[in-house]
Amino acid sequence: MKTRIGILGYGNLGRGTEIAVAAAEDMELAAVFTRRDPSTVSIQTKDVPVVCIQEIEAWKDKIDVLILCGGSATDLPVQTPLYASMFNVIDSFDTHARIPEHFKNVDEAAARSGHIGLISVGWDPGLFSLNRVYANAILPNGKDYTFWGKGVSQGHSDAVRRIKGVKNAKQYTIPIEEALEAVRNGEDPELTTREKHLRECFVVLEEGADATEVEKEIKEMPNYFADYNTIVHFIDEEEFKRDHSGMAHGGFVFRSGRTGVNQENKHIIEYRIKLDSNPEFTTSVLVAYARAVKRMAAEGVTGCKTVLDIPPAYLCTQSGDELRAHFL
Amino acid sequence: MKTRIGILGYGNLGRGTEIAVAAAEDMELAAVFTRRDPSTVSIQTKDVPVVCIQEIEAWKDKIDVLILCGGSATDLPVQTPLYASMFNVIDSFDTHARIPEHFKNVDEAAARSGHIGLISVGWDPGLFSLNRVYANAILPNGKDYTFWGKGVSQGHSDAVRRIKGVKNAKQYTIPIEEALEAVRNGEDPELTTREKHLRECFVVLEEGADATEVEKEIKEMPNYFADYNTIVHFIDEEEFKRDHSGMAHGGFVFRSGRTGVNQENKHIIEYRIKLDSNPEFTTSVLVAYARAVKRMAAEGVTGCKTVLDIPPAYLCTQSGDELRAHFL
Repeated sequence: MKTRIGILGYGNLGRGTEIAVAAAEDMELAAVFTRRDPSTVSIQTKDVPVVCIQEIEAWKDKIDVLILCGGSATDLPVQTPLYASMFNVIDSFDTHARIPEHFKNVDEAAARSGHIGLISVGWDPGLFSLNRVYANAILPNGKDYTFWGKGVSQGHSDAVRRIKGVKNAKQYTIPIEEALEAVRNGEDPELTTREKHLRECFVVLEEGADATEVEKEIKEMPNYFADYNTIVHFIDEEEFKRDHSGMAHGGFVFRSGRTGVNQENKHIIEYRIKLDSNPEFTTSVLVAYARAVKRMAAEGVTGCKTVLDIPPAYLCTQSGDELRAHFL
Repeated sequence: MKTRIGILGYGNLGRGTEIAVAAAEDMELAAVFTRRDPSTVSIQTKDVPVVCIQEIEAWKDKIDVLILCGGSATDLPVQTPLYASMFNVIDSFDTHARIPEHFKNVDEAAARSGHIGLISVGWDPGLFSLNRVYANAILPNGKDYTFWGKGVSQGHSDAVRRIKGVKNAKQYTIPIEEALEAVRNGEDPELTTREKHLRECFVVLEEGADATEVEKEIKEMPNYFADYNTIVHFIDEEEFKRDHSGMAHGGFVFRSGRTGVNQENKHIIEYRIKLDSNPEFTTSVLVAYARAVKRMAAEGVTGCKTVLDIPPAYLCTQSGDELRAHFL
């Protein structure tokens, strides 16, 4: 029997999840839940209902895993514990600093209801976390580096858009090539914030806004830009729509470690991803982990889990025999 | 209480394991077992006995995990099932084609004795396998590429040494840069054997041997060299010892996949390692997994396992709370 997936929230992540479920031969989409008027939400998959979120409880026995496609700022802190009381759930909660608190809330709700709440699934946190953990366990004496980009930072784009006189804006985080090379070459550099990433902004101004003022305000914005070299381009709305609607992203995780009687041998582990579509890749990770959640639930596992708790084989459709013969 | 590690076999892997155990604060070396006369084996760690292999059974209750440091050709197929009947064991069995058979033998022995036999731990099989499995689960529609090197292939070096007139030889497997770049750029190339790797041999001849003959014999050797471009250098013994005693190695695993309603978005996952010492890195992986074996054994797990069966957190000294706060 196929794994029955529910999607909560039909934005970029919801649409990505729908595509990833369609690509998985062992899964089927059961329903899409929305806070909007369902009649205004049109999905790709035929014969699958769009359901008002108020009615979700009626679906308790019709869904194996509910994939939460809301945002980390306000949606998931509420939704993940709430829906873990009715379903096995997965989210992509990515506010690193608040993960311990989120874990605790989800763990209480999921343990009480006898479900699994798998949190912080995606690429960072997610695949990058896996790589940090494996590499640190293997090379306990070493240094970690994470670089993000090139890709759009939603938080930084929002910050620019809040500036008076800005009509629209996109901010790209760009890893600095010299820094990547120094790490890759085993130089173990001490890198400042400014030496790791560059920030590049494409800004559409409101009519009559002062470009010099806006540029100054961006570059001096504390936390977001002041510690970085920032390039600001002013463009018109047409160019903005044409060239800056993409959702490409990527990044790098490095571990540089030493072994040997006198620590004389150096080893570099590099994990890199280059993505045309950040939401479609993120949801591909979510859907692979939905497979693991269903399997763990069948084993009687409950409570909050993360990718660190899950055996890699659980993500796969293949049997152990097949994996050992073809992938090991 | 520290995890008590036993080492069986004190060659390159045995010495590497000893170093990795010394670097792990939660482990201690209990004994080194050898087939040689123990009085001829001198180890680094103070106050640890070197014990004749015949006496190993007396150590059954004094060792948590026995790390098998023999070779895959003849040692491990016998040793891993044999010692899984007395200990929790880990090996680095790397003959890919024979893994299913090895798994079966170890599984029977370990299940019967109530121990864990963790096989094929290292980087390929091992970390590369993990990356193939994660990436395939996440991007089901795509292509895999594995490249090895630059590094010494023991099998190819041995093959050259068996040629009449060859006194000594080292063979380096070198990934071809153009092929790596094509994969990294998302071109999804169809690569022949010859287009993926180059083979470079450094050969010391016996006195009076015919260089032209030896070079021809190397380049035309079926399976080992005939399908590759091969470069042969003849050098003297002094240069051989000076420049070709290193044990550096490395490699790349790529997954190139597509998502989207019309498969319009491309994603590249790249995992790369660059190692100064192949045996020291391999044994660092073995020792991290020894931690997992002890933990699973305490949970009552038995039988044969691979890296695909083990949650990443089990490799770590840190608690779940610490991992979530600092690595996720």
